[in-house]
Amino acid sequence: MGFKIDDRKLKRAGLDYWHLLDITYYESSEEFFAKHSGEKFFYFSTKAPHKYTEKTYPDKTFIVFGKETKGLPEKLLFENPDTAVRIPMISDARSLNLSNSVAIGVYEVLRQWDFPELQENGKLREYDWQNT
Amino acid sequence: MGFKIDDRKLKRAGLDYWHLLDITYYESSEEFFAKHSGEKFFYFSTKAPHKYTEKTYPDKTFIVFGKETKGLPEKLLFENPDTAVRIPMISDARSLNLSNSVAIGVYEVLRQWDFPELQENGKLREYDWQNT
Repeated sequence: MGFKIDDRKLKRAGLDYWHLLDITYYESSEEFFAKHSGEKFFYFSTKAPHKYTEKTYPDKTFIVFGKETKGLPEKLLFENPDTAVRIPMISDARSLNLSNSVAIGVYEVLRQWDFPELQENGKLREYDWQNT
Repeated sequence: MGFKIDDRKLKRAGLDYWHLLDITYYESSEEFFAKHSGEKFFYFSTKAPHKYTEKTYPDKTFIVFGKETKGLPEKLLFENPDTAVRIPMISDARSLNLSNSVAIGVYEVLRQWDFPELQENGKLREYDWQNT
């Protein structure tokens, strides 16, 4: 990671959602892949050969992003040509920022899974949708 | 808007992409709607009754977001029950941040349009996808 996870600014950015996270830390990417061998990974990169929406993401998929400045290592991508995916963007722009890319990737997976356990509709406070 | 568009920090946040934007300014939401009457709008809100992925977004759709702190006015949502949409999220969380919500909304529309004029696949620098 390119940042400290105990940073005060990071906690503040997480606002009051911090307690909703379920985070697992690994010493290295090698440790991470070793502990999850046999599981399914997709690698998000501007350099990837497929668009992210053409893939079907199975249950318990891991989606993997690189750091903001460098992205994922080319060797890792090259070794995984079928699961390296790109979010389409204009050719002139280097890339979307990391936070937006993760949001887009996560919500494509959730869309394919039909948003399990997520609240799909909201309520008004001053009006009632029933009365429309 | 809750911020100044000529702010130095805003420009810096836009990095070297600023020149790629095509921005139109309106004095008020009233002016905006008056100038685009007859066109199609979708209103993104945590309070909306439909999930954003169940709608079909026609060509030249406007997608409308409220400010980070308050979202869109309830009256506006209540008057547009068929086009008020929610991004599903866990019920405990107040909402995704505005930047991520816009990214998710925009990319659902682009997905439905099959990413017009966007670059769908990338290239490696040190390797060649042709050799996989």
